[in-house]
Amino acid sequence: MSYPKSFEKLIDSFRRLPGIGYKSAERMAHSILDFKDEYVEEFSTSLLNIKDLKRCSICNNISEDVICPICKDDKRNNKLICVVQNIKDLYAIEKSGTFNGLYHVLNGIISTSKKILPQDLNIDELIERSKNIDELIIATNPTIDGETTALFIANVLSDSNIKITRLAYGLPMGGNLEYSDELTIMKSFENRKAIK
Amino acid sequence: MSYPKSFEKLIDSFRRLPGIGYKSAERMAHSILDFKDEYVEEFSTSLLNIKDLKRCSICNNISEDVICPICKDDKRNNKLICVVQNIKDLYAIEKSGTFNGLYHVLNGIISTSKKILPQDLNIDELIERSKNIDELIIATNPTIDGETTALFIANVLSDSNIKITRLAYGLPMGGNLEYSDELTIMKSFENRKAIK
Repeated sequence: MSYPKSFEKLIDSFRRLPGIGYKSAERMAHSILDFKDEYVEEFSTSLLNIKDLKRCSICNNISEDVICPICKDDKRNNKLICVVQNIKDLYAIEKSGTFNGLYHVLNGIISTSKKILPQDLNIDELIERSKNIDELIIATNPTIDGETTALFIANVLSDSNIKITRLAYGLPMGGNLEYSDELTIMKSFENRKAIK
Repeated sequence: MSYPKSFEKLIDSFRRLPGIGYKSAERMAHSILDFKDEYVEEFSTSLLNIKDLKRCSICNNISEDVICPICKDDKRNNKLICVVQNIKDLYAIEKSGTFNGLYHVLNGIISTSKKILPQDLNIDELIERSKNIDELIIATNPTIDGETTALFIANVLSDSNIKITRLAYGLPMGGNLEYSDELTIMKSFENRKAIK
């Protein structure tokens, strides 16, 4: 005897989440049976509300308004733009509290294997925005596709006068030389800094 | 800058699921942004539909009707009842395809540490149902609380004529002696079976 249809449907929905297999989805669906009614309603509503989120018309961040709070913020340096692959990376940088400029979310990276081309990304908008800034920090991931995208953008903007930078490569803080890959160690030697 | 409120709410909802911390919940919420609209609606609706599921008035299984398909099934042996802690265990047994009787879901087990007493469980209903059967298989988990519950039920029904059994203890199939705990090994010796 299998689960009631509505229960199977919930399992199917959970399975669409990243990293969730049948067993975990089943466990989650069972936990919903024990949820308070208000929590289930809250969950259900919050899912629908997500689809009401807009994309900021300037930087493409998720936002409740047409322009996101970061782009609206007068205290941020609008001469500095950090290019990120996706919204997740934007918030990872925000959480570090290290950056006070604006962002530009590409919504992906150039990938020959996944057939994602420059025209599929928000690169035209970036070129437009780059006209009035001092520096563009390209914070795509240190992967082949991330590098390709960074080089492509740097190339497109090669005639402009703005400074174009890339995040530093090296050992992660709290990391361990023993467990670092060869390429990271190589980069950490290449980019070594004088301490005296 | 933190996430939009509706996004944080969705993260909170995911965090209520078992085994999901902030990072996983965040990842799930981000994945919802990329979901097709119809999948999000399906997810949202299936959550609400779960709360419409009834409990079978006979065995306490989840069901779309007042009586669940298992209790309704004429082909099942209604002289045999298997007692399980929860619905998850019921479906685990169903999936094994090994049992053709009916079930009785206790909705928990007696636990002194969690202050769950016999009167908190569906034991009275079980006693009532036990009047017309041949055998009661107690399939609570092989834990202290599971044992306590099994002994309690066996005790309550000691005056009746029905056969009361407990699932066998031993090495799990495909398991490994090396990684088995002492108690399981002890039980597997105690309950060893002649093969010749």
